[in-house]
Amino acid sequence: MSALANAVREDRLWQRHADMAKLGATPRGGVNRQALSPEDAAARNQLAAWARARGFAISTDAIGNLFVRREGSDPAARPVLSGSHMDSQPTGGRFDGMYGVLAAFEALEALEDAGVRTRRPVVAVAWTNEEGSRFQPGAMGSAVFAGHYGLDDMLAARDWKGVKLADALAETLGAAPAPMRAGKPGFALDYYVEAHIEQGPRLENAGTTIGVVTGIQGSRRYIVETDGEEAHAGTTPRAARKDAFAAATRIAAAMYEATTDADDTLRFTIGRVEVHPGSPNTVPGKATFTIDMRHPQDAVLEAHEKILRDIVASRAAPCSAKIERVTAVAPTDFDPRIIDLVRDTAGGLGLSHMDMPSGAGHDAMHIAKLCPAGMIFVPCERGISHNEIENATPADLAAGTRVLVEVLAELANR
Amino acid sequence: MSALANAVREDRLWQRHADMAKLGATPRGGVNRQALSPEDAAARNQLAAWARARGFAISTDAIGNLFVRREGSDPAARPVLSGSHMDSQPTGGRFDGMYGVLAAFEALEALEDAGVRTRRPVVAVAWTNEEGSRFQPGAMGSAVFAGHYGLDDMLAARDWKGVKLADALAETLGAAPAPMRAGKPGFALDYYVEAHIEQGPRLENAGTTIGVVTGIQGSRRYIVETDGEEAHAGTTPRAARKDAFAAATRIAAAMYEATTDADDTLRFTIGRVEVHPGSPNTVPGKATFTIDMRHPQDAVLEAHEKILRDIVASRAAPCSAKIERVTAVAPTDFDPRIIDLVRDTAGGLGLSHMDMPSGAGHDAMHIAKLCPAGMIFVPCERGISHNEIENATPADLAAGTRVLVEVLAELANR
Repeated sequence: MSALANAVREDRLWQRHADMAKLGATPRGGVNRQALSPEDAAARNQLAAWARARGFAISTDAIGNLFVRREGSDPAARPVLSGSHMDSQPTGGRFDGMYGVLAAFEALEALEDAGVRTRRPVVAVAWTNEEGSRFQPGAMGSAVFAGHYGLDDMLAARDWKGVKLADALAETLGAAPAPMRAGKPGFALDYYVEAHIEQGPRLENAGTTIGVVTGIQGSRRYIVETDGEEAHAGTTPRAARKDAFAAATRIAAAMYEATTDADDTLRFTIGRVEVHPGSPNTVPGKATFTIDMRHPQDAVLEAHEKILRDIVASRAAPCSAKIERVTAVAPTDFDPRIIDLVRDTAGGLGLSHMDMPSGAGHDAMHIAKLCPAGMIFVPCERGISHNEIENATPADLAAGTRVLVEVLAELANR
Repeated sequence: MSALANAVREDRLWQRHADMAKLGATPRGGVNRQALSPEDAAARNQLAAWARARGFAISTDAIGNLFVRREGSDPAARPVLSGSHMDSQPTGGRFDGMYGVLAAFEALEALEDAGVRTRRPVVAVAWTNEEGSRFQPGAMGSAVFAGHYGLDDMLAARDWKGVKLADALAETLGAAPAPMRAGKPGFALDYYVEAHIEQGPRLENAGTTIGVVTGIQGSRRYIVETDGEEAHAGTTPRAARKDAFAAATRIAAAMYEATTDADDTLRFTIGRVEVHPGSPNTVPGKATFTIDMRHPQDAVLEAHEKILRDIVASRAAPCSAKIERVTAVAPTDFDPRIIDLVRDTAGGLGLSHMDMPSGAGHDAMHIAKLCPAGMIFVPCERGISHNEIENATPADLAAGTRVLVEVLAELANR
């Protein structure tokens, strides 16, 4: 192993995960650290404190993305960027996103500890609100950085309680130490590499340590709403009812059936459901639910969107119903040069590896539009993620970080 | 019309409904005055103030039932009781329950205004928590009064936010003027008559003013819970999912189908649905929903309960699921003497009337176990209830109250 790869300290990296897991810890061992919550602010403070202790520069942009910078030798050279996100699902795990941030930070420390000078700066980043569970859409910080979503639109987003993102952000940054850099987010950069747990079972099933990520499947999100009429549960005959949840059930059942594909590639999820007024003895007058649909081919998503729209139009009666597309993210193909570099580096370190697409969306899908980009996956236990029992091994996390630091050092000298 | 029936003042009765509708008023013209809320406390204060102004005695028992008493001439005679409830659904109407309380209070005032002496005391009652939307089970105050539910069990009930009923009751009674009478609720009484809006369309469709209520259909409540496994919406193939909402959808769809009967008599409602963790991009790990099922024949309820249990057992895989029965109330048949008296009184007043069963449950079903009991229905617009647009006419409300006061005066002299 190179001196640089050897400077990655498995124990330090693991301890940092344990320290971060305390911020928003849940009883079942996971975390609830949703975007721009007090727990998210605490994680930002923690990362900034570690950065200051190593003399790295920290900064925040207007959507709250947090950057930790180790300078290079050439003041004119554009940086290499690496990172992920620190926000979590409401019942999330300790590694989703956080691993990519801590791996990038460990890479900075390894470069420092090994005394490696790079021509370009190497910057670790924690993107704001990747999960999109509290504020939609997800991958927000990286999308604003890349110019794909407007800053003002995102600042106006509201969570399910009606809290405005701009207010939550002001509160979060008020508690965090990095001053906000004014103006539109984004700066010139030449390369981006993101480390992440796989969040699926393929690496573990194959007994392989490193996933060389070739791209990210496309995803679309929708909200379906059914409108009926509230009525008394004891007196109103079925023929006289406009039951919004009965309509939602018909629609959901037809959608589950229509999205079943032979090779089990299409992903269809109804994750959030609200029924109004929510009283046991009142026929529901309104129901809403979210749809998350993903596939590697945009044409398949397009065809299934049409099917979903047909189902909503045909199954709601006697209620009315509508479906609204909230976001559509096209499939991403990573840069072949980064894919090759990750594969060669893993091989050079003697680590087992395999090429694979990403089933989950990541911040890398937005940054890949700005510069050559790629990702490194490591296994997670039973492929379980977005779950408090999400788990990974210290050795795998360190292995992925060793690949990352060598890739970053190579790119930082190109 | 008799002098007594003539003493019922339509304008006063309507104004009292308008005054009560301000307490918990919703933007769409209904009320949100759930049991033991600050709005419920305000309604209690209002009724007590009106009672004091007329010199009636007020008292409260240990479950919060509020009594307004007009004394009779015989100190040894047991009272005639009449009333209903003042709590509402979260998006309820201005007449459900409140009409029965205000009709009983108007009857007391009419007796007073007409200078009618009765042998027995006549008591108006506002039963605690009939709706059962915040604390379950419903019809709680009358059931505790009748000894059907234990006082301590009910005081230990919690709402969906975890607030204990005993604490909500202490807060409500702390704000209300009537001192609580210690000891087990309940006292000896000889007759009970409850006025109520029909909450169904039959009287309006028939152009009839008075419903002579013959009984109340039986009702059962259940909670269904499906348990799966939270997982990432983008990475987890369907074959590897345990999607708790997909399971709930299969179960609900099968139940809607299995509870469709040819004569549209069985009432089946899923009113409250909770999906956990409720994030758009996480496969749900848990879902719960409530079932409200009613029918005039207990055997039909029993048979359908078996069907529901079979559906839960057979449709949940690969998730697990369970169904728990929360309450079961057998059908009620009212006393033929009260039914006859209501019918004859309506006829004597020249009001159109028809015999009918009640589709909704009412406090009368519990009190009917203690003494001869009955109910008087008046029409409500389009049969719509448990809805903010619930409506009734001043003339119909007064007509029902005229029947009530004559019935009460007759019973109070028996």
